[in-house]
Amino acid sequence: MTEPRFRNARLTDGRTVDIVIRDGLFAGFEAPAQTHDGEDLGGKLVLPGLIDGHIHLDKTFLGLPWRPHRAGPTVPHRIAAEKDGRADLPVSVEERAKTFLARETCLGTVALRSHVDIDPDSRLDHLHQVMAARDAFAGIIDVQLVAFPQSGVLIAPGVADLLDAALSDGAELIGGIDPVGIESDLDGHLDLIFDLAEKHGVGIDIHLHDPGHKGAQELRAIADRTAALGMQGKVTVSHAFALATVDDRTLDLTMTALRDADVAILTSAPGTGALIPVAALRAAGVRVFAGSDNVRDAWSPFGNGDMLERAMLVAYRAGLRTDDGIALAFDLATGAAAQAIGYGPYGLEVGARGDFIAVDAETLAEAVVDRPPRALVVKGGRAVARDGALV
Amino acid sequence: MTEPRFRNARLTDGRTVDIVIRDGLFAGFEAPAQTHDGEDLGGKLVLPGLIDGHIHLDKTFLGLPWRPHRAGPTVPHRIAAEKDGRADLPVSVEERAKTFLARETCLGTVALRSHVDIDPDSRLDHLHQVMAARDAFAGIIDVQLVAFPQSGVLIAPGVADLLDAALSDGAELIGGIDPVGIESDLDGHLDLIFDLAEKHGVGIDIHLHDPGHKGAQELRAIADRTAALGMQGKVTVSHAFALATVDDRTLDLTMTALRDADVAILTSAPGTGALIPVAALRAAGVRVFAGSDNVRDAWSPFGNGDMLERAMLVAYRAGLRTDDGIALAFDLATGAAAQAIGYGPYGLEVGARGDFIAVDAETLAEAVVDRPPRALVVKGGRAVARDGALV
Repeated sequence: MTEPRFRNARLTDGRTVDIVIRDGLFAGFEAPAQTHDGEDLGGKLVLPGLIDGHIHLDKTFLGLPWRPHRAGPTVPHRIAAEKDGRADLPVSVEERAKTFLARETCLGTVALRSHVDIDPDSRLDHLHQVMAARDAFAGIIDVQLVAFPQSGVLIAPGVADLLDAALSDGAELIGGIDPVGIESDLDGHLDLIFDLAEKHGVGIDIHLHDPGHKGAQELRAIADRTAALGMQGKVTVSHAFALATVDDRTLDLTMTALRDADVAILTSAPGTGALIPVAALRAAGVRVFAGSDNVRDAWSPFGNGDMLERAMLVAYRAGLRTDDGIALAFDLATGAAAQAIGYGPYGLEVGARGDFIAVDAETLAEAVVDRPPRALVVKGGRAVARDGALV
Repeated sequence: MTEPRFRNARLTDGRTVDIVIRDGLFAGFEAPAQTHDGEDLGGKLVLPGLIDGHIHLDKTFLGLPWRPHRAGPTVPHRIAAEKDGRADLPVSVEERAKTFLARETCLGTVALRSHVDIDPDSRLDHLHQVMAARDAFAGIIDVQLVAFPQSGVLIAPGVADLLDAALSDGAELIGGIDPVGIESDLDGHLDLIFDLAEKHGVGIDIHLHDPGHKGAQELRAIADRTAALGMQGKVTVSHAFALATVDDRTLDLTMTALRDADVAILTSAPGTGALIPVAALRAAGVRVFAGSDNVRDAWSPFGNGDMLERAMLVAYRAGLRTDDGIALAFDLATGAAAQAIGYGPYGLEVGARGDFIAVDAETLAEAVVDRPPRALVVKGGRAVARDGALV
């Protein structure tokens, strides 16, 4: 087994070191050696590889001609508009997913969690196509798949069985969606999702858009079940907009329940509405992480798959201006995300996965603010992208 | 006089044309000629040059080593932290302003309005240094200067006289700041600012951070004076956060007053708090435009002077997802800004200033979403930047 060496790497603490990787894991951060072996990083700043905690590989229009946004403003509007638009998509789910995976790899993402629609129309088709894209990128970018009932389960005939089949086919997590707002049956939806998770021994990642006290009640119900079933650390709630819109007492109660059940919260730092209080969640011991969510799809024309830009948007929206605050936003797109999706051991330390990016930036904060090009992306000791192109 | 020709330019309506510029103004958008004269744009999309409606050329740290953010969360905190930090700035205002002007030019900005601090400590020093930077960029980027009492006027000894002197020295507008929140004297502040404007025959651009009903009352007071003094079209209120935080009835009353007095509103689409309702303001007939505001300075570590990115942030924060909505956000950083700062005639039409950018994008909306590199920046028919470097 070779031992890749990357010389003259600058760490965020200011040291310049040679990085040695063995069997895909960091084996050393050594004083610069008098050798010409390996690759000279020329003092570029190295940072952990980026993690995208929430993306929809089957939805993106990347690689297609520009498609104007057509959907109305609500979640049901967007679900309907998305289905209407599927028929005239000239490029397959698999090809679009590959385009996106190549893009994210070039931008320094080493692992991601993707939701994949499972509905009465597309059935398991999207899942199988995304799996083919995932296989094509094995070793380049890790892809974890969530069987996601975008159109509901209780209200969508046959979806429960399709989710069961998706998990048998290899989806790593079961998804869910607004138990009250979409499904109108909190216990019925959670019974079904948690039963499937137990049957297949998989984790859960539920889309929760419901705002205010309704949404906070759903969050606590999810936390209660998670604790009761011993699923601590295996459940995520994505978006959880309710956390941004309840009074302080309800927020405290809800954060305590989430922390005690170790339920993770995912944010994409959307532009409208209040942002969930990421710093308060972290301070309360709740696991928070970040993801792209919609990237140029039927839901949103914005986004580009750059998790360094996503960290900037988290900081910008959360008012995190100090270096510590910006480092927190960056952690949501790296360490915290790795822990939440179970991609570890992770970080620039001996024994962790040999994943990093090298950029022209003076400090971590500057890298987040500036989002410089990724000069090099290394995964498991192997260069996978260089100067914006796959190796 | 030469007649620069830029061949094979793609317009947003899909036509490919040759652009002819005469005496610095657009003279024709012609069917592609059988000629090799001029520059071949190779079908790149051309858009109007960008306008930055609000920047602080004397504050930016661009070109310095990274400086961690130190200020507390309020406006007075930031005013104090900024002054504390001035002493150890190793590069002059003039040099930092030049660095910023070069950056904005390379990013396609052809004109900007900069506020410049006038206070008891720096007196006219910042103004004179920014004027020197402006003169160095004459013909490359237009710079309009606002004599800005960052530390107040009534509460800051000597500032009224310094503002008077600044206008005599050539500042094009008089600034102001929170008549109630900072100055604690609405009429006293406005008397002084409007008197100086009348004396020197200049426009006004007032920073207004005061929120809620207090801020809305100040907005209406500014509108009333503007109308009473016949200054319609010459007054801007920057930020005007109150418009995001009042009830609908107060908003309607305030928008009507602003429209009737033709008072313009500037936003930088900040990340925290609610965004002012840009689409509603436009629909109500109020002139709205956009600017960078703080770019990597004592107030904020964020920002990069890219007005195409600023348009994206306006759209992202305002929930403008359709092509028309994204075009509105773009207009805030081009046509509406040009009109508000009096930089005209403007736009891609015969007789307007011969300013444009050329980018690799399929549509206007895609250009805003992607913010592609500026392949070419032309001002008055002259190429001023190419591929990110000054010509």
